[in-house]
Amino acid sequence: MNIVEVRLTPVAFADPPLLNAAGVHEPWALRTIVEVDCGDGLVGLGETYGDLPHIELLRRVAPLVVGVDPFATSRILEIVRAELGATDAPDRHGLTGVSTPEKTALRVFSPIEVACLDLQGQLTGRPVHDLLGGAVRDAVPFSAYLFYKYAAHPGAGSDPFGEALTPDQIVAQARTLIDRYGFGSIKLKGGAFPPDQELDAMRALRDAYPELPLRIDPNAAWTVETSQRVAREMVGILEYLEDPTPGLAGMAAVADVARELGMPLATNMCVVAFEHLPEAIARDSVQVVLSDHHYWGGLRQSARLAGICQTWGIGLSMHSNSHLGISLAAMTHLGAALPELTYAADTHTPWQLGADVVESPLPIVDGAVRVPTTPGLGVTLDRDALARMHEDYVKCGLTERNDAGYMRTFVPDFEDVRPRW
Amino acid sequence: MNIVEVRLTPVAFADPPLLNAAGVHEPWALRTIVEVDCGDGLVGLGETYGDLPHIELLRRVAPLVVGVDPFATSRILEIVRAELGATDAPDRHGLTGVSTPEKTALRVFSPIEVACLDLQGQLTGRPVHDLLGGAVRDAVPFSAYLFYKYAAHPGAGSDPFGEALTPDQIVAQARTLIDRYGFGSIKLKGGAFPPDQELDAMRALRDAYPELPLRIDPNAAWTVETSQRVAREMVGILEYLEDPTPGLAGMAAVADVARELGMPLATNMCVVAFEHLPEAIARDSVQVVLSDHHYWGGLRQSARLAGICQTWGIGLSMHSNSHLGISLAAMTHLGAALPELTYAADTHTPWQLGADVVESPLPIVDGAVRVPTTPGLGVTLDRDALARMHEDYVKCGLTERNDAGYMRTFVPDFEDVRPRW
Repeated sequence: MNIVEVRLTPVAFADPPLLNAAGVHEPWALRTIVEVDCGDGLVGLGETYGDLPHIELLRRVAPLVVGVDPFATSRILEIVRAELGATDAPDRHGLTGVSTPEKTALRVFSPIEVACLDLQGQLTGRPVHDLLGGAVRDAVPFSAYLFYKYAAHPGAGSDPFGEALTPDQIVAQARTLIDRYGFGSIKLKGGAFPPDQELDAMRALRDAYPELPLRIDPNAAWTVETSQRVAREMVGILEYLEDPTPGLAGMAAVADVARELGMPLATNMCVVAFEHLPEAIARDSVQVVLSDHHYWGGLRQSARLAGICQTWGIGLSMHSNSHLGISLAAMTHLGAALPELTYAADTHTPWQLGADVVESPLPIVDGAVRVPTTPGLGVTLDRDALARMHEDYVKCGLTERNDAGYMRTFVPDFEDVRPRW
Repeated sequence: MNIVEVRLTPVAFADPPLLNAAGVHEPWALRTIVEVDCGDGLVGLGETYGDLPHIELLRRVAPLVVGVDPFATSRILEIVRAELGATDAPDRHGLTGVSTPEKTALRVFSPIEVACLDLQGQLTGRPVHDLLGGAVRDAVPFSAYLFYKYAAHPGAGSDPFGEALTPDQIVAQARTLIDRYGFGSIKLKGGAFPPDQELDAMRALRDAYPELPLRIDPNAAWTVETSQRVAREMVGILEYLEDPTPGLAGMAAVADVARELGMPLATNMCVVAFEHLPEAIARDSVQVVLSDHHYWGGLRQSARLAGICQTWGIGLSMHSNSHLGISLAAMTHLGAALPELTYAADTHTPWQLGADVVESPLPIVDGAVRVPTTPGLGVTLDRDALARMHEDYVKCGLTERNDAGYMRTFVPDFEDVRPRW
């Protein structure tokens, strides 16, 4: 039973005006749903970025895997690498670090691999995690992912979350998410406002939730000096400090101070491909890697990353961009199978406002997603929703995520400068 | 369908008097056949060392995995680690480097994991390599593994291979193996005689087979200085130089010279556990790792090792001790699934003289084993052979491999001293 077709459907879903160092989320977030079809109704699901340059690479690769066995994922990776060669497709927002040709190939391969694992699970009657060594936990913990946000997109009514610009509003947002989902840890997306303002929010969170691990991620908006100062001020408050400053050298300079303080530095920006690991490890730039199967090349490559982290004593957490229920399921199976995943994973799920392409999205209960035990990923495509969300994609007119451009709607002279402070 | 029993059967098979730095092979080689039984005739096969201290650890662990799902191999590894704790069981011959508690746990876990993968393949109707990302090659190349050897064990008739102590005899041995199996590369087990004598044999092999890649492995019998001299003399002759000298520091000192010469150093002695990799990489002690799933913790852990090798630009080859057809099948599935395996693997198969516990051992043709496409490992236990070889185990009276002790039969004052030259 071989692959007969790979279908790519770009979709859009409403996204609140969430702030970050690159600007602010546009009214629509884009994703691509990947269906790997083996005929006879057997379809595997994958999910990836919705930026047009990325979709164009997926379109180049899709016909080349027709006829290939869905178990032959290493062969498929070879096909992707051979087709894309030195092609590099950086994203515009730069929130997942630098791009390289190999990262581009792994990013294109990833949703196909996930869909093939979904197929393998369906064909063998086993959940995906069983194809990765089996689950070492019954539920995968996720963290409350807080954002500074405007009350509403221009011209739109307020969304259910409302404005979050002050420490009190951030604490209120945490309370909303924790009351609804039971999260046991909290991450604040920073880099939107001057650091002292954001540290005040962290202190307010600490006071409101003294027992919960806290993190802040300014997406490299700070200088080395600012980052070192933050590390000193946040000792005892932060579980880890995520991407305070750009680059492996800058992170290493922050780490020199943070190490003494017992404060780990985490990243999903300066270590985003296997080729970054040798220098990162030689410099001891980071102590936690936030893996992301969407650009690390799928679930088995992510397991290889976990092996590297374990070998060098680097912690493993999990990064998230705006995503839908297929990715949540993939993250959950991977998180179930990796003994090394010792931190709660990030997820944007609460910000989707329930929009999804799957029929019954895996629920977050008590801050965790129970690991599916049904065959494959354990989620089913809602074809009506897919069609509707594809229409939204066409109608919304967006073809590439551009937080900085959209930010100029609010702040006309905004420039994405990092480090900013 | 869970595990109902793990059966351990020690076996022995005739082994020729093969020489190495630790002494000489005894008349019997020991292995343990591991059967993971899920009931209803469903049995997965694994194969591991036959030394009694190792069997005793297997016996401790075996009952603890009863009731576990054979897909839950990561969970089984946790069970093994929890049971063995700080237990360390070094082998007596020291031919696979130092032991550590983690290496001991991975060594005990390995045959259970292989047997579980065999079961998974049978349950899903897929060959084992499909559970590791699929085959990237149709056949896995192996090398001709030459040994200095005595004509016969004391009191026994000569074996079909005869004496191999001179360069001419080594070339004749190569010819026998290559004519029979079509090997496309040659490895000489060295460390048995003074280096210049062994280098003469390498030059004779180069003259006889100028087109074939050559390797020599003295099992750390040489000093740093001797190893550096060998590297200089063997430029243009060796594909890689394997374990010339003991330890990561010694290897690094040899590598400092070998690097300039373009001569990679390979090891299955100074990097034999994940915990050795950070220092080995920081020092650039080795350029090729000879993986061995028997002590790296099975096939999925070996894939993690491959990921590390790829990330740091380290070559990957495959080590072998005396083994039977279950291990050959496991090595073949792993070799099929790892894009990173760019060297022909070692195997002792020709020295078994056809003895095996499987019904139809995978044949070596044109220097390679064709990758099985039948479910599981693709080999079937020959229960009569198993019973017979277990009887041989009981009768032979050996409980631990002891090449040095046996060497004193030939050389009364032999001591296993490394480096020797």
